[in-house]
Amino acid sequence: MTTDAVALSADLIRCPSVTPKEGGALVLLESVLSAAGFACTRVDRGGVPNLFARWGEKGGKTFGFNGHTDVVPVGDAAAWTHDPFDGEIIDGVLWGRGATDMKTGVAAFVAAAVDFVRATPPEGAIVLAITGDEEGLGKDGTRALLDWMAAEGEAMSVCLVGEPTCPDQLGQMMKIGRRGSMTFYIEAEGVQGHSAYPHRARNPLHALVALLGRMTAQPLDRGTQHFEPSTLQITTIDCGNPANNVIPAKARATVNIRFNDAHSSETIESWARGLMTDLTGQTGVSFALKTEVSGESFLTPPGEFVSLVSRAIVSETGVVPELSTTGGTSDARFIKDHCPVLEFGLVGKTMHQVDERVEVSQIEALKRIYTRILRDYFA
Amino acid sequence: MTTDAVALSADLIRCPSVTPKEGGALVLLESVLSAAGFACTRVDRGGVPNLFARWGEKGGKTFGFNGHTDVVPVGDAAAWTHDPFDGEIIDGVLWGRGATDMKTGVAAFVAAAVDFVRATPPEGAIVLAITGDEEGLGKDGTRALLDWMAAEGEAMSVCLVGEPTCPDQLGQMMKIGRRGSMTFYIEAEGVQGHSAYPHRARNPLHALVALLGRMTAQPLDRGTQHFEPSTLQITTIDCGNPANNVIPAKARATVNIRFNDAHSSETIESWARGLMTDLTGQTGVSFALKTEVSGESFLTPPGEFVSLVSRAIVSETGVVPELSTTGGTSDARFIKDHCPVLEFGLVGKTMHQVDERVEVSQIEALKRIYTRILRDYFA
Ligand SMILES: [Zn+2]
Ligand SMILES: [Zn+2]
Repeated sequence: MTTDAVALSADLIRCPSVTPKEGGALVLLESVLSAAGFACTRVDRGGVPNLFARWGEKGGKTFGFNGHTDVVPVGDAAAWTHDPFDGEIIDGVLWGRGATDMKTGVAAFVAAAVDFVRATPPEGAIVLAITGDEEGLGKDGTRALLDWMAAEGEAMSVCLVGEPTCPDQLGQMMKIGRRGSMTFYIEAEGVQGHSAYPHRARNPLHALVALLGRMTAQPLDRGTQHFEPSTLQITTIDCGNPANNVIPAKARATVNIRFNDAHSSETIESWARGLMTDLTGQTGVSFALKTEVSGESFLTPPGEFVSLVSRAIVSETGVVPELSTTGGTSDARFIKDHCPVLEFGLVGKTMHQVDERVEVSQIEALKRIYTRILRDYFA
Repeated sequence: MTTDAVALSADLIRCPSVTPKEGGALVLLESVLSAAGFACTRVDRGGVPNLFARWGEKGGKTFGFNGHTDVVPVGDAAAWTHDPFDGEIIDGVLWGRGATDMKTGVAAFVAAAVDFVRATPPEGAIVLAITGDEEGLGKDGTRALLDWMAAEGEAMSVCLVGEPTCPDQLGQMMKIGRRGSMTFYIEAEGVQGHSAYPHRARNPLHALVALLGRMTAQPLDRGTQHFEPSTLQITTIDCGNPANNVIPAKARATVNIRFNDAHSSETIESWARGLMTDLTGQTGVSFALKTEVSGESFLTPPGEFVSLVSRAIVSETGVVPELSTTGGTSDARFIKDHCPVLEFGLVGKTMHQVDERVEVSQIEALKRIYTRILRDYFA
């Protein structure tokens, strides 16, 4: 008996698990995994449902999978060709919210793991860390699982995240890293005054424009061996002064930075604080900075683990995957502090859109790739 | 019989003529002027009351006075030591809204003109152009009077505006010009996108920051013979984008410029449009510019009229007035297109404040100065 990754995908889509609702998705996976001999533990935190499952003994060579069962909202429900929570398969295509991001990925690695341990019980362990909040704040999702694992002495030797990573064709791209992401919330405070008498005031907007001008004048870098250049974008500037004869006292700006492995959030923050100190010295306008770090950059450089995953992809698809570090952030940013982590999954084209869907043959191919990775890893 | 400028000031303060209310102020002046043989015409426009008065024949040598009877609101009425519309005189000080700006100035020139034509009827004419809206939009105030005068063939050879011009001491300062004032309303429009993928977007905030950075990097000038340097102040920047992962499509800024006689609103606008065109070429972000001109700069350079007024001030006060072009805009910006115009009046320290007040001896001194100016002008 083998596990049908397509049927499991469809069953998962039928669970209305819009972040942070469990929707029956983790309950379903727990029953499938328990039946195959996985030790399952719900690691819920702060209202977020999470599932930890291990086959084999704790402490030895351990392959980890990570993924999420929560999905983004359906958007305009009326615009969907098929009900987003029906999990219908029509002409070889599975429709529904989560069909690419990433109930299918979870179903593929669960099916691969279950069948693998039944057919060829490995020397070592397989761990599945599945969260119900990746699309939301993520503060009590994979992080809660990792915190709990650390406390329980649970570990992974390596980890594969099943997020959709391929732009157009299955096998085309895996992620060996991601840029970090951080946000500056800047407030400039000067001295209010009349616009005809600027020498009696200190215009916070002039200092803010000078600061943002310096931040954006030069690129942060020109890219590194594995990364595209870091980017810095001003996302808003606000002052709200309605009077054109008044110099305002305060102004705010938000700046979002995606940074590669040439930086850390710390080096970037200290660069920004240096610019601010300079400008305060020049203008008398003071700056308050609040920094929010969504994640540091991470890189699992080409090596044994990358080669293993890459070879499995080539063998099953005939396509040589690009080793990419593009895109936004993912939960791999948390896992990288625990073990080498890579990401590989389906074509993500329709993710987060109306009519999210995937060919069922791709789900089956993904299961085969994950199976081969497990086989090669434990060989 | 002479006209009591102090009593007339107090009577005017008792007229609650908060812009654009007439409050009885122009009616009172019309009765005083008519009784002295001035031909009076109400030149109301757009709900704004205005009074034109002429003694003598139209078409000859004509001395003009300009001023306003409207006042700004009292602000916190409870904070006043004396009721702002009572016109109380206590220990030689006249209290009330308009005590410096500028019911006293109007009372002083009306009293001076009335007594002068009675005592020594001049060869020529005296014109009084008094508006009920200087503190408001001013669009139907002195401008309406000047438009009407032009249509009627009424003209002034020179004009003295009775606004408070002295910082601390009567006689200290007269205005021989004012900087111009204009406001830019700028909208930058780019292409919205995700902050992780800025190459697919065009960030209007970056282009706006670059534009404003160029506008503020260098002073517009270092001042001219009679003027302080022009100033340019960003008064607000607004975008209102709440999402730090989104590059917005649009952003707005307002810039207020006070410019001296090295510029005109036209040369400044064309400079700004040049910067915008450059930046649009570099960034693909387009700019829309709306320009609002409150007034061009004006200058009545030192010469016969300036010397006449200056000498009268010195004779009556012993103080040599500074020939200044500082401060905001005044109705002189409209008058300068018709004849040489100067401004001289009381100490403005308490203008627009709670407990606006003035020593009555200053009102009497101001009347004497205006009288001497008339005498010297028609001598
Ligand atoms: Zn996802
Ligand atoms: Zn005034």
